[in-house]
Parts: sequence; structure tokens; C-alpha cells
Amino acid sequence: MKERVYLDWNATTPLRLDARQAIIETLDIIGNPSSVHGEGRQARRILENARSAVAAALGADPGEVVFTSGATEANMLALTPGVRRQASPPTGRLIVSAIEHASVLAGGRFARDQIERAPVNASGIVDLDWLREALDRKPVALVSIMLANNETGAIQPIAAVADMVHAAGGVLHVDAVAAVGKLSINFSEMGADLLSISAHKIGGPKGVGALIVADRVLGLESELRGGGQEKGRRGGTENLPGIAGFGAAARASADDLESDAAHGARLRQRLEAGLKAAADNVIIFSEDVPRLPNTTLFTVPGLRAETAVIGFDLEGIAVSSGSACSSGKVQPSHVLQAMHAAPDIARGGVRISLGWTTAESDIDQALGAWRKLTKSLGKKKDETVLERF
Amino acid sequence: MKERVYLDWNATTPLRLDARQAIIETLDIIGNPSSVHGEGRQARRILENARSAVAAALGADPGEVVFTSGATEANMLALTPGVRRQASPPTGRLIVSAIEHASVLAGGRFARDQIERAPVNASGIVDLDWLREALDRKPVALVSIMLANNETGAIQPIAAVADMVHAAGGVLHVDAVAAVGKLSINFSEMGADLLSISAHKIGGPKGVGALIVADRVLGLESELRGGGQEKGRRGGTENLPGIAGFGAAARASADDLESDAAHGARLRQRLEAGLKAAADNVIIFSEDVPRLPNTTLFTVPGLRAETAVIGFDLEGIAVSSGSACSSGKVQPSHVLQAMHAAPDIARGGVRISLGWTTAESDIDQALGAWRKLTKSLGKKKDETVLERF
Repeated sequence: MKERVYLDWNATTPLRLDARQAIIETLDIIGNPSSVHGEGRQARRILENARSAVAAALGADPGEVVFTSGATEANMLALTPGVRRQASPPTGRLIVSAIEHASVLAGGRFARDQIERAPVNASGIVDLDWLREALDRKPVALVSIMLANNETGAIQPIAAVADMVHAAGGVLHVDAVAAVGKLSINFSEMGADLLSISAHKIGGPKGVGALIVADRVLGLESELRGGGQEKGRRGGTENLPGIAGFGAAARASADDLESDAAHGARLRQRLEAGLKAAADNVIIFSEDVPRLPNTTLFTVPGLRAETAVIGFDLEGIAVSSGSACSSGKVQPSHVLQAMHAAPDIARGGVRISLGWTTAESDIDQALGAWRKLTKSLGKKKDETVLERF
Repeated sequence: MKERVYLDWNATTPLRLDARQAIIETLDIIGNPSSVHGEGRQARRILENARSAVAAALGADPGEVVFTSGATEANMLALTPGVRRQASPPTGRLIVSAIEHASVLAGGRFARDQIERAPVNASGIVDLDWLREALDRKPVALVSIMLANNETGAIQPIAAVADMVHAAGGVLHVDAVAAVGKLSINFSEMGADLLSISAHKIGGPKGVGALIVADRVLGLESELRGGGQEKGRRGGTENLPGIAGFGAAARASADDLESDAAHGARLRQRLEAGLKAAADNVIIFSEDVPRLPNTTLFTVPGLRAETAVIGFDLEGIAVSSGSACSSGKVQPSHVLQAMHAAPDIARGGVRISLGWTTAESDIDQALGAWRKLTKSLGKKKDETVLERF
């Protein structure tokens, strides 16, 4: 059997060795971090060490880190009606960009009629003029804009957004899930008041994440209420092995940031040149704006994303049709729709995302499959492409 | 250094070997269960195998199992205003017993004025007469009563409660966290509509649990909304290693249920005889009612629980002052208060809880520490007891 090639790193990454080690060591820790006895205190030390590691990787203070079961929960926690910055009025509405993750689009605990969607341009960048006008209205808004989009990789102008939001008295939440480990993040300087991250996108385990909450943020309301863990901001016994793995992954990811980014950029150049060489009319989305170094969303007219994903898979290559967080639902990418792509183009976006163990030969294998796919597509109706595999 | 003795199994258990193995194997699974490629499908198989194992252990259908980040989240999800049984009206208020876990007492998404607390008697058993009267009122109620209390171990009359609740058109949620692995549970027969469990109380990892949702239950509203995982009932990438460990622990726990229970009961008899032999006025709470076989909550007048816990700890023995889910807060047990214990007695409850690796010698070591403690208590003010350790 051919070796599988995994090129879906934006969906989830393999576990880093440091994280694996930290998880396994923590499996034998018996205590509950809330217990006062020695076993409990030992568990708490592991928890707080991981908190410090995550904080350090993001330029945050350990006290600002709230561990959650993942970014979806972090996003839900962030989107609290009434959350505010010190000395500002409580936020009474929510503005999200149209390309946010489903958990942000759902609006957390805001009522449906309190939520507005900021449009993006054809390159997938949030419309700052629209945002400026929207912020002029009352009540004060909580704004949620991702640092980089998980499908296209397009990097959003967060510094400019932060200035606008704060000038209007609002609060800025940034979903940094796709960006972390690929872009340098300094929470204390970037202007975000709230920041969501997930462990399993940076070589940590699935099922753990964090919301970073700036000290100046008031009115955040616990989503899970219970035993008062996480300073009352998130109840429930902590996922200790997962959190330990998260801490180790955050440390390793921060250490390797520059080399990982350079590695991704170099391989992506090879990938994109090859993709374009295989057909005349290859579209690479958001190609004209700053993107994450590891992400390529592309198509050719006439391609259906699900056909391509299955075609790649049959060739032993794991790629994605946009976000993997949609439980296998086949529908046009909401990101490409927001970018005003024609409906058939919005159904055709294939995402290849790279990581630290991706090799040149992986790229070449993917390009081989791509050449087969585009060749078939030229000859036959899309529906029959799979026959060639 | 003396070997530590862990007698705080109701706070959290050590990991079972089967669970440890399942977690470690799953660490190397690269896919996201929502991805359609081979790696994703492999991840999904692990998820669904674990779901089947948890369902089988509880006499539930796999489709009824919703994985969560733990019992706190399961409880929050269960306590949805408007949840109902097929053909019954939506629930408009919540009745919880006064001895529930903090996450149930918090009332989930019910408004504070929609929540009532059912009293318990001096033995810690919910007052059925009160409940019957309360159910006569409108609107129809969601009722949340635990199967067994985590502090006293007192087993609640769930079958009788279920009959009453259903006769009144209501919905019954049962927090089975403390009971699972110690009592035989058959979800399809016990009358509960919703049931919460946690992995780390049965030898699984911390940070994973489940809500069992009977097919007849309608109107449950997702607490975490996002990518549509868990049939839209719980968004967010699944904690795959944790869930795999949960499945393995559920299987092992169900297999060992009878022998674990017998082991616990035999050792507890030795423990309670020894506790009483050390002082004249030892109180064992809920001694006169059916209890979990592994749990003893006890005190002597004049003892402060936190002093005792530290005293035991210095002797190398981990015990608890009631629930460990309160982040080390020192305050009277709400369970003992609800049982009408005098304030100084409610501050004195020490919990010893046993598990499958507890040995006779562990009990004897705990009894040695207890004899020291009670002896000191007889001679001195409680505050100075620690000097003898």
C-alpha cells in the first residue's frame, strides 16, 4: 500500500513529539487540580505550567489564559452580550465578519437580531469602510474578526480593526485558530481584547483550547458554570493531559515558528507553481493579499470540491474542501460565497494546507494527482472523473 | 519517603490500563473526525467505537450518546429551558435537589427565578412528598436529581422520582457522575430522560464526559454551536484521545462493576469499623440509607474538615472535605447543610472514597492517621492538631 500523504493541516495537525510526551507523562498524574492534598497540588502545578507556556507563546499573561475544550467553546465564551472594556459601556450588539468560523457566525449568546455580518472583498479581506460606518451606530459593539482565514489563509488587518473598535468604545475578539503557529502573535500588543486558540492546530491534542482574556475586559460570563475553576470563568474538571499537551505544543510551536513558516512558504511556492502548470485556468484564492504561509485554496472552473477531495484521497492524499469543521456536509464554501465567487466556483475550492513534516515529495505526489484530475476534467464531465482513479 | 495512599476516588480516579492504552494509540491518529478523507474516516471510526462502548456500558443506544468536555458541560446542556418529552409540553421551570453538584445548582440556562430546590431529609434523601406537591404546579418542570450523592454516597429513589415526573408531563435529568462504575445503570429502564456521566470518575481521562439523551427528548439546545458535530447537539472538534479513553474505561468499568463494588464494600466495612473504634462520637453520614459501596463521609464533633484533610495529607493520605470540584474553597458542605447538620458539623465532613486498587493496608494507614487526629482533637484545640503531624 502506498504511503499516505497528509495535506490537511488546517483541519488538524499531527501531534508534536513534545506534546505527546507531556500527555503521556500526565496520564499517570492521579490528582484533581481542585483537590487540596498533595496529589491535587501536583495536578495544579501541571495545569499552571501549561498555562504559563501558552501565555508565553502568545505574549499574554498567565492570568489571562482560560482553558476550554477547544476554540468553539472559547468563541462561545468570548461572545458574551454585555462584555466590555474597563470604563466603556457594555456591548449591546455583535459584528462578525462573513468569513468567520461557524462557531463565531452562530453568534454565541447574542440574539439573532443583535448580530451583523461585515462583508469582505473579493480577496477575502474584511471591508474596513463598512466596519467604520457600522461602528458609528449604537449600541457599542463586540466585534469578532479572525486573524487569518482557515480556508484561504488571508490575513486580516487586525491592528486597523482594533483601532477602530476601540475608538468606538467596543471590544475586539480575534479568532486566531488558523493563524497561531504560522504568524507571530503578541497578545499584549496586537489590540485584541479576547483571543481564541486551539491546541490541535499547532501540534497539540484535539479537545483543548483557550480564550485569552485581557485584564481590562469585564463582564465575561461563564459558559460552563460549576466548581469555580479557571477563576470562575470556566467550570468543570480540567482536561489535564490535554492541557499539558497544549502547553508543550505551544512552546514547541513558538520555538519553531520561523522555520515552520519558511518551510511552509517554500513548499507552497512549489505547490502553487505546479498547480498552475497543470491547467490554464487555475484560480488561487486570496493570492493577491497576505496569506498564511502554509495555505492554498484553489480550483479550476468545472471542478467540484467533493469530487476533488475524493480523487485526491483515492491517490492517497488527504486534502480538504474548505473547513473540516462541518461534519462532512457538502455545500458551497461560505467563505468563497462571501468573496462573491460565482456559485460553481464557490463549490470548487480545494484546500491544501502544509505543516512541519510536509516533504517536497508530498507536494510532488499531490501535483501528480492534480494533473490526473485536471486532465480528466478537461476530457469528461466532472461526475465521471473518479473513474480514472 | 512513604508511599502515598490515595483515598479520594470520588474526586477523580487513576486511569485504567485499558483507557491509558486507548489514549496512547489514539495520539497517533492524525485525522479530524469531520474530514471526509481516509484519515478523517479513521478518526470517526474511533469516535463511533467509543460511543458504542459508552452506550453499551449504560444500556443506552449509541445514537443517544452526546460527548462533552465533562459532566459540567453535560449538565449545562441538559438544563435547557423548554426541553420536553415527545407529546408533552415544553418545560418552563427547573427543580433540582439541594444536594446536587454546583453545575446543576447553577441551573444551566434557566433564569434564577425559574429554579426551585427540592429539600432532602437528614439522611440526604430527596423529599418525595415535597417533589410531588411541586410537580402539581405549572408550568411543567425539568427535574434534576442525582443518582447518588458524591459526598455522602446516598442513593436517590430515581425510579419513584421518574414516575412522578413523567406523570406530571415533566422531564427527568439524572446526574449519574458519582454512581457510574459503582451501581449498575440501565438507561433504557431507569426512567431518566437525560443522564450525565464523566470519564474521570470511572478510570477514564479528565476532560471528557457525555450526556445521554433519550430519543423521546425534544428541544435540547446546543450549548456549544459550531460545525454541527454530535448531530448538531455539541459543536467543536472532538477530544478524540479522551473519548477513546472514555470508551475503554466505560467498557472496563462495566466489566468490573460487581467485583469493584464488592471490593469497595468489604474495605469500607473495615474502614468504618476502624473510624468508629477510634473515638466515641464518630458520625457517618447517610449511614442508615443505601449508599454507594465506596464512599464514607464522616466527622467527629469539633473537627474541621480542612484541618483533617491537611492532617491526613501530611501522613501521606489523600482524602477530601466533600466535593473536590470547588477549587479548594473552604466552606461548609452544601450537602450537609441541606441535611440540616449543625454548622460546625457541616464544616467537619471528611470524605474517604475507595477504588479498585485500594488495598487493606491503605485502609489501615488511614485509620492510623485518624487515630492520631482524634487523639489530638481530644487533647487540644482543633487549630493545633497539626502540630502533632
